[in-house]
Amino acid sequence: MTIDHTDAPTLPQTPRTRTVRLGDRGSHDVTLIHAIIDEAPICHIGFVDDGIRGQDAPSPIVIPTIPWRVGDELLIHGASSSRMIRRLQEGGEACITVSLIDGWVLARSAFHHSVNYRSVMLFGRPRLVADEAEKRAALDALMEKIEPGRSAKVRAPNVQELKATSVLAFPIAEASAKRRCGPPADDAEDMAHPVWAGVVPLRIVAGEPVRDPAQAEG
Amino acid sequence: MTIDHTDAPTLPQTPRTRTVRLGDRGSHDVTLIHAIIDEAPICHIGFVDDGIRGQDAPSPIVIPTIPWRVGDELLIHGASSSRMIRRLQEGGEACITVSLIDGWVLARSAFHHSVNYRSVMLFGRPRLVADEAEKRAALDALMEKIEPGRSAKVRAPNVQELKATSVLAFPIAEASAKRRCGPPADDAEDMAHPVWAGVVPLRIVAGEPVRDPAQAEG
Repeated sequence: MTIDHTDAPTLPQTPRTRTVRLGDRGSHDVTLIHAIIDEAPICHIGFVDDGIRGQDAPSPIVIPTIPWRVGDELLIHGASSSRMIRRLQEGGEACITVSLIDGWVLARSAFHHSVNYRSVMLFGRPRLVADEAEKRAALDALMEKIEPGRSAKVRAPNVQELKATSVLAFPIAEASAKRRCGPPADDAEDMAHPVWAGVVPLRIVAGEPVRDPAQAEG
Repeated sequence: MTIDHTDAPTLPQTPRTRTVRLGDRGSHDVTLIHAIIDEAPICHIGFVDDGIRGQDAPSPIVIPTIPWRVGDELLIHGASSSRMIRRLQEGGEACITVSLIDGWVLARSAFHHSVNYRSVMLFGRPRLVADEAEKRAALDALMEKIEPGRSAKVRAPNVQELKATSVLAFPIAEASAKRRCGPPADDAEDMAHPVWAGVVPLRIVAGEPVRDPAQAEG
């Protein structure tokens, strides 16, 4: 099945991306999904490894890596020799989860404590970005995510480095977003319970850059 | 096999926790593993779901949740009715990955850009925390992780809420840590390349608490 969703505001639901629990938190909005991927410095890729010695059943493996986006694909990269890249290149099915934590939700009742968050869950099999020009452009886009303008300033990958790095592209097609925001949702009978209730916002901040000691200033 | 590692400074290596790539970044030090779990507001649990309609192969699933620790077990909780809890209770094998991002590593060459991080990868099957007193103590410990002192102040779970919530405990036995820290590791021939090199520290910070608008001040 080919899904052309380039102009679609929402993705079609599948058995894997239908929101079952807390349905009001679910979304298939492409703009929201893209924004979460673009903001996140990290995602977690799950795949199944059935080749581990001594295991009686296929083992789930979850690896953290940097996600970035080019158009309507989510890209990851890794050492060409790594297990994750090899397994996914062999056609392994992946679940990529991207999570941003926005705050602790402190309720009056223990039960209604929660987390404000935005997350994306994406399923699929990747294609290998094999074309050299496309691969270079993809790696430049990763550099631009880390620091806008940096791709033009660094020493570009040589042929050996390009070969040692694999870039995989997942279609953002079978995916959903989920989010919670706002104050706690305590039960009516708890509203007078004498404890502070509200949200403690959390965010990732960049600190003062630390220059490589091996580099002279200037 | 029973592994008693209570007094052991390091965990035994298994085929799943042996550090294959970048071995100098790997560790099986229990103190480090505990510290990463204690600091992290989030972990990602991977498991295999072979019951999804329309899938030709078992699907990996990765779910974000809050990890906390009691002794040498990593605990998670969730709605008793959720797929994750049901699947893991049925004896499903899990891979729990806990990742803390400490900074962007900006190198002179594109290839040597990296991330400073600390992570834990833990494999295993959980036990259900069924005893009521143990379950209440475990949920109190979760509250204490979110805000020290809070468990005594909130309205405790009633019987119905306790039943609706499941707590699962994973032994911290088959686990490893991995970390990168410090400046970029550029090749000697790139050291004079004219671009700023160093580390941009990243951390999660708490902002000004936002009181629930439904709560009067005081």
